[in-house]
Amino acid sequence: MSVLSLENEEETCSVEMTVGVIGGKWKPVILFHLMSGEKRYSELRRLVAKASDRMLTRSLRELEQDNLLSRHVFAEVPVRVEYKLTKDGKTLLPILEAMSAWGSKRNIN
Amino acid sequence: MSVLSLENEEETCSVEMTVGVIGGKWKPVILFHLMSGEKRYSELRRLVAKASDRMLTRSLRELEQDNLLSRHVFAEVPVRVEYKLTKDGKTLLPILEAMSAWGSKRNIN
Repeated sequence: MSVLSLENEEETCSVEMTVGVIGGKWKPVILFHLMSGEKRYSELRRLVAKASDRMLTRSLRELEQDNLLSRHVFAEVPVRVEYKLTKDGKTLLPILEAMSAWGSKRNIN
Repeated sequence: MSVLSLENEEETCSVEMTVGVIGGKWKPVILFHLMSGEKRYSELRRLVAKASDRMLTRSLRELEQDNLLSRHVFAEVPVRVEYKLTKDGKTLLPILEAMSAWGSKRNIN
């Protein structure tokens, strides 16, 4: 079914719903990095370099609350914290792929 | 090429680039509505009901500056203002479709 036929209240809500969960400047970028596998906090800190500490931790916490990623604390010294996508989080792949493809083309033009 | 193989600086930038252009709470919702054809300001005002006037007009202006939609003023009384997607704007279809599909499933679960 094409998006062109979906002009109704319910479908509108579906885009708003998605923006409500993965909207914000950094969430798609974080999720995109986790697509290739779990990451330590320090890795994400480096990969999402332009986000402030506050925004990065806040985005991670909200994504965890929405069950899109899980946080694992390993009792080592120093403590190791890893983030990885949940099964729900992996369902975002089509959106992230489309965003990546579009941004790549835009970069070229 | 799968997103899983795209773990590098360039591809990261591509997601950030996309978020930079269509990020924000209302832009994807506005663009989604325009997928089905041009809309008058009053129609968008009704369809994107939860956005403030300020946020709606700001989002429309920024989307116009980024060449994703065009604004047409018809010299009628009262004046008629219509917005429609540009050729560039239509290239966002895969992202918006994926966002709509994901939000629909999320609504059900």
